Amino acid sequence: MNNLTIALDAMSGDFGPRVAVPAALLALSQHPNLHIFLVGNTDEMLSYLPKKDPEQQGRITLVESKSVIDNDAKPSTAIRHSKGSSMYIALELVKCGKAKACVSAGNTGVLMGLSKLLLRPLPGIYRPALVAVLPALNQQKTVILDLGANSECDSDMLIQFAVMGAILAETTLDITHPRVALLNIGEEEAKGLDRIRAASAVLKTHERINFIGYLEGNELLTGKTDVLVCDGFVGNVTLKTVEGLLNIFLAPFKLTSKRKPWWSRLLGLWLRRSMSKTFGYLDPEQYNGACLLGLRSIVIKSHGSAGAKSFAVAIEQAIQAVEKHIPERIALSLSSALPKSENN
Amino acid sequence: MNNLTIALDAMSGDFGPRVAVPAALLALSQHPNLHIFLVGNTDEMLSYLPKKDPEQQGRITLVESKSVIDNDAKPSTAIRHSKGSSMYIALELVKCGKAKACVSAGNTGVLMGLSKLLLRPLPGIYRPALVAVLPALNQQKTVILDLGANSECDSDMLIQFAVMGAILAETTLDITHPRVALLNIGEEEAKGLDRIRAASAVLKTHERINFIGYLEGNELLTGKTDVLVCDGFVGNVTLKTVEGLLNIFLAPFKLTSKRKPWWSRLLGLWLRRSMSKTFGYLDPEQYNGACLLGLRSIVIKSHGSAGAKSFAVAIEQAIQAVEKHIPERIALSLSSALPKSENN
Repeated sequence: MNNLTIALDAMSGDFGPRVAVPAALLALSQHPNLHIFLVGNTDEMLSYLPKKDPEQQGRITLVESKSVIDNDAKPSTAIRHSKGSSMYIALELVKCGKAKACVSAGNTGVLMGLSKLLLRPLPGIYRPALVAVLPALNQQKTVILDLGANSECDSDMLIQFAVMGAILAETTLDITHPRVALLNIGEEEAKGLDRIRAASAVLKTHERINFIGYLEGNELLTGKTDVLVCDGFVGNVTLKTVEGLLNIFLAPFKLTSKRKPWWSRLLGLWLRRSMSKTFGYLDPEQYNGACLLGLRSIVIKSHGSAGAKSFAVAIEQAIQAVEKHIPERIALSLSSALPKSENN
Repeated sequence: MNNLTIALDAMSGDFGPRVAVPAALLALSQHPNLHIFLVGNTDEMLSYLPKKDPEQQGRITLVESKSVIDNDAKPSTAIRHSKGSSMYIALELVKCGKAKACVSAGNTGVLMGLSKLLLRPLPGIYRPALVAVLPALNQQKTVILDLGANSECDSDMLIQFAVMGAILAETTLDITHPRVALLNIGEEEAKGLDRIRAASAVLKTHERINFIGYLEGNELLTGKTDVLVCDGFVGNVTLKTVEGLLNIFLAPFKLTSKRKPWWSRLLGLWLRRSMSKTFGYLDPEQYNGACLLGLRSIVIKSHGSAGAKSFAVAIEQAIQAVEKHIPERIALSLSSALPKSENN
């Protein structure tokens, strides 16, 4: 088992080091070969680090940063003033080879822009996409992209996302000839936007892609496709709609009220167990971490509001991506999957 | 109680008269003052009409149509050849004043195009929008538009949707000064698409609109806003995502397995009742029927896959819209809410 180093933007997200440091400790306890660069305000990070386990601390390196990228910042402005920020330094650690992957819960637009700038897209890729693997009915999984890295996408970008998504499904989910669909507002040929219809026309004749056509929102978690492609605006709204609804549905089964009689609490406990068995696979906490696909290195975006357990899931995604050599395998497959003119 | 006449496109939707006729009978039984024009193939419609209740049948008029608009049809082509179709005739009955509203489960794009052509938009309205009232937490309701009538919208259209949505919330939900939000991929000023930011800038200073800013997908059913505005593509995908997820969640509570032991079935029954009490308000069956807002008359679009009970809910929406004089009240409020140049 080789050593593996990850850089964490510890100041990112709604909670900064209060969540990032415990998440790092959780990941270290699960992976004896893991080393973590914690990038942020050293004093703040130290206050969340326990002193009792020096070995674990031996696998943590604190890296001081001077600033934090604001969640509300406009990407173009923020990128210009990003040098010295925790996000910039974490990405630089990947660029210079000291870390194999970067995890951040920060501003998506800035993370996308800085990653492109510092780590560069794979040859032939116009724009990296934010991708996640969603759970679906009957133990299936669906690769969905873009989830917000590119608000608007033309047909060429959608085609590239389809190619990258299919390669990801092949390499990480072990699906041979994965089904690829475009998210649309109808299943019929004439439905939707021009750019989606144009992408559909190309994907239909694409040798490497098992294109199954359009899918509508109501089929999102049904497992009818292995890869679902859409622009970043729609993907982001859709993913967040799913999360919001799941939170509404799972909330009653997570609460324990002490005011109720014992039999009601017992029934509640049984109900929660049963619900968790039926729907637990949909719990948003379990699938935190979207990968910026199409870069030469691995960058994972955690949900801004993630708690420690959920942030640790994003770190786990980074570890899996490193161990499965995702960028290398995508680069290898891309050369045959993209039209010749796109390889440079 | 005045007589009230509705025209039904009885050939529309996935099931045609098999659903539309029983839905019409259901609506007639609930409204003694209702008269319905059933437009479609007379023989087919007659086969679903029982002979035992002549009074009820006295309130049905069958109108023969020669063709049906295909669900898969491209709107521009279908509209050119729409004369004589059940949808065209149903809308014509509204145009000539014989019916007060039209209900169809047919092709959304064609329904939108034909409605604009035959019934015309209200003065100052560029494009009508498909609007629905969604249930939200704590007995709240949210008016959401556009749901698919206009795949792409510029900022002016979004502003008009905000104005029309606010008037609908005032008149039908009795909300004084309803909160209006734009659906976006972040709450911060700089997030999202240019057209959304442009609409936000105008709505912020709009005298008649209580604009509360951006809302994200995860807040859709939380009741944080009374009116939620988005383009038709995003609205349609979002609504269908909600429907799909609700179906996944509500499915286990609707099924009754006879293979299970009695105590398990009893527990299941209790569970279903309890779930229906907690989440029943979200059942998609209960909120079928989206209104084409911004026309001079009332057009309701039913879900294509609606069953008879659900189609009857869409008819009920039409009745409510007629009784509440929605187009007239919107026309009245629009003259003061839209910029002067838009009133003609």
